[in-house]
Amino acid sequence: MDVRAAVALKAGAPLSIETVQLAGPRAGEVLVEIKATGVCHTDLFTLSGDDPEGLFPAILGHEGAGVVVEVGAGVKSLKPGDHVIPLYTPECRHCEYCLSRKTNLCQAIRTTQGRGLMPDGTSRFSLNGEPVLHYMGTSTFANYTVVPEIALAKIREDAPFEKVCYIGCGVTTGLGAVLYTAKVEVGSKVIVFGLGGIGLNVIQGARMAGADMIVGVDINPARKELAEKFGMTHFVNPKEVDGDIVQYLVGLTKGGADFTFECVGNTTLMRQALEACHKGWGVSTVIGVAGAGQEIATRPFQLVTGRVWKGSAFGGARGRTDVPKIVDWYMEGKINIDDLITHVMPLERINEAFDLMHDGKSIRSVVTF
Amino acid sequence: MDVRAAVALKAGAPLSIETVQLAGPRAGEVLVEIKATGVCHTDLFTLSGDDPEGLFPAILGHEGAGVVVEVGAGVKSLKPGDHVIPLYTPECRHCEYCLSRKTNLCQAIRTTQGRGLMPDGTSRFSLNGEPVLHYMGTSTFANYTVVPEIALAKIREDAPFEKVCYIGCGVTTGLGAVLYTAKVEVGSKVIVFGLGGIGLNVIQGARMAGADMIVGVDINPARKELAEKFGMTHFVNPKEVDGDIVQYLVGLTKGGADFTFECVGNTTLMRQALEACHKGWGVSTVIGVAGAGQEIATRPFQLVTGRVWKGSAFGGARGRTDVPKIVDWYMEGKINIDDLITHVMPLERINEAFDLMHDGKSIRSVVTF
Repeated sequence: MDVRAAVALKAGAPLSIETVQLAGPRAGEVLVEIKATGVCHTDLFTLSGDDPEGLFPAILGHEGAGVVVEVGAGVKSLKPGDHVIPLYTPECRHCEYCLSRKTNLCQAIRTTQGRGLMPDGTSRFSLNGEPVLHYMGTSTFANYTVVPEIALAKIREDAPFEKVCYIGCGVTTGLGAVLYTAKVEVGSKVIVFGLGGIGLNVIQGARMAGADMIVGVDINPARKELAEKFGMTHFVNPKEVDGDIVQYLVGLTKGGADFTFECVGNTTLMRQALEACHKGWGVSTVIGVAGAGQEIATRPFQLVTGRVWKGSAFGGARGRTDVPKIVDWYMEGKINIDDLITHVMPLERINEAFDLMHDGKSIRSVVTF
Repeated sequence: MDVRAAVALKAGAPLSIETVQLAGPRAGEVLVEIKATGVCHTDLFTLSGDDPEGLFPAILGHEGAGVVVEVGAGVKSLKPGDHVIPLYTPECRHCEYCLSRKTNLCQAIRTTQGRGLMPDGTSRFSLNGEPVLHYMGTSTFANYTVVPEIALAKIREDAPFEKVCYIGCGVTTGLGAVLYTAKVEVGSKVIVFGLGGIGLNVIQGARMAGADMIVGVDINPARKELAEKFGMTHFVNPKEVDGDIVQYLVGLTKGGADFTFECVGNTTLMRQALEACHKGWGVSTVIGVAGAGQEIATRPFQLVTGRVWKGSAFGGARGRTDVPKIVDWYMEGKINIDDLITHVMPLERINEAFDLMHDGKSIRSVVTF
């Protein structure tokens, strides 16, 4: 079938709006009509060419929501008409990782997904007879896409696509890091480095978890008002701090934070986030993705005196199990997504979403079909 | 009173056997007759002059066992005749740290202890009328010492001093890192870097915790037999491995270890220990103390994909609560200490213990009074 898609033909070039061909779902696969998709930094990272694992030509996009159109052989958990969010972290519920009870990093289709292919090793997309690669197993920058059954979360049908698509990545990554990875406790002191889309979702996760003090750190003072709406109690602009930012934060939190989160992908901030943790028990969670080859460092004394350094991918959330719950939280008013979606546009203007993100003018842009 | 002590008069020189004067216990303090003391790498580190916080002249030693002789005003939990192990990590049970339920790093007397003084800011030891400093709050290289009540674990009276003194540091540091810090689970795969006294205690801790696979890594093949006696199932000599040691260990453990421990104090090994952890859930615990100013590093991807980096001091054990239990385990035959004490000598020969340790010829030397 013909589908409309924004195709990443090569690194460093704008996306090209094309009519591409999409083959139907094979065994274990599902054809989904994408109704809305967010545009995320990870898409920008890959499109820029900085992602060493980026492959082209490909149809990017990993933050979508839509409706099941057709299911392939053997698909049992979904039927046409079901509303779904595609998952770049699948949940097969059978692999060593899913059964470990300790991680959300299902490995069932990791190898083919990393190569831009469906689990059978082929692509469903083509352009002028040449294959076009999938991306993160989701390829939501197309009005129809094919996704493995294990990479689709079934969600309630009254949830608006143009809002809950954001749960496909940013919301879950931020909320989940607080709730599933760090397990923030009632009464905690929390520091969040970076008040973009992830950081703001960390803030509302910390508020949900009952944190007493939620410190936001950002060099952009324009983020203060929005972050306060999400639950931030103290704003710190490192540009306005005399002296060492870590010492300042340790003082502000009277000994260091119980939990810190790095939401930028900057290895210097990752170190600051660890060292701003409270001696004895502070837990620092890395969420941001650093550039290829960059390293984090600290003195081991920081660990020996009780700080813990960990990381989170997709918020530690199990996609099929936890994403529907987060959709419920949105529908019940427990979390705010609306104020994070600053721009909505049609597919034809998707490159504007990249420009807005690059210039720091948007929290999240959503493309509707 | 006059006491016999091995005094560290200055950095880099052998200990000097002297008769020093010891004042009686003040309020909250206890006079202890030391019956036996281990000689630990930390004593060597301080004596060498490499410890930037080392102070002289001082009476070193922090791994002792003895008998209460006299208690100062207000001391309620101990009486003359009680058998005790001095604690360089006290347990006041009242400070923010003790009450956190998350750490053993009681801070009640940290500042004065770090300055080589009793909590009231003075020393009880003197030599020729000049003050001699305490060390780690314990100063067990003397046949009598004064220790704060909160820094003494009361132990059973049938436990032999010359064995259970080792519980004052090495045994608890290794066992505790497994049981209290990492919380190794039944069926786990464990890798231990360094098979000295700490590493061997990590191994027997992992065996107690029911680990399935316990890999020991050491460049000294002579350690293999003893480590196997303590529970090691696989020995790896990095000098005999072709190629990358981390890849070798990941292969040996079929994906990486559930828990790893660094017991040397080498920042390169700390990185290897983290990276030899299993994706998704592996936990690496730093036990060894690195040289001043040295740093650990890794790619943040290691954390984002689920590995956790933490550290342990005094095994995460609460001294007054957990040390008596560990003494019980020794008396009940659950742990082996006898095979770790390779040398026993009188105080007059204590410098031989430093030589044996420096040359790697001992696991643990114990001085008896």
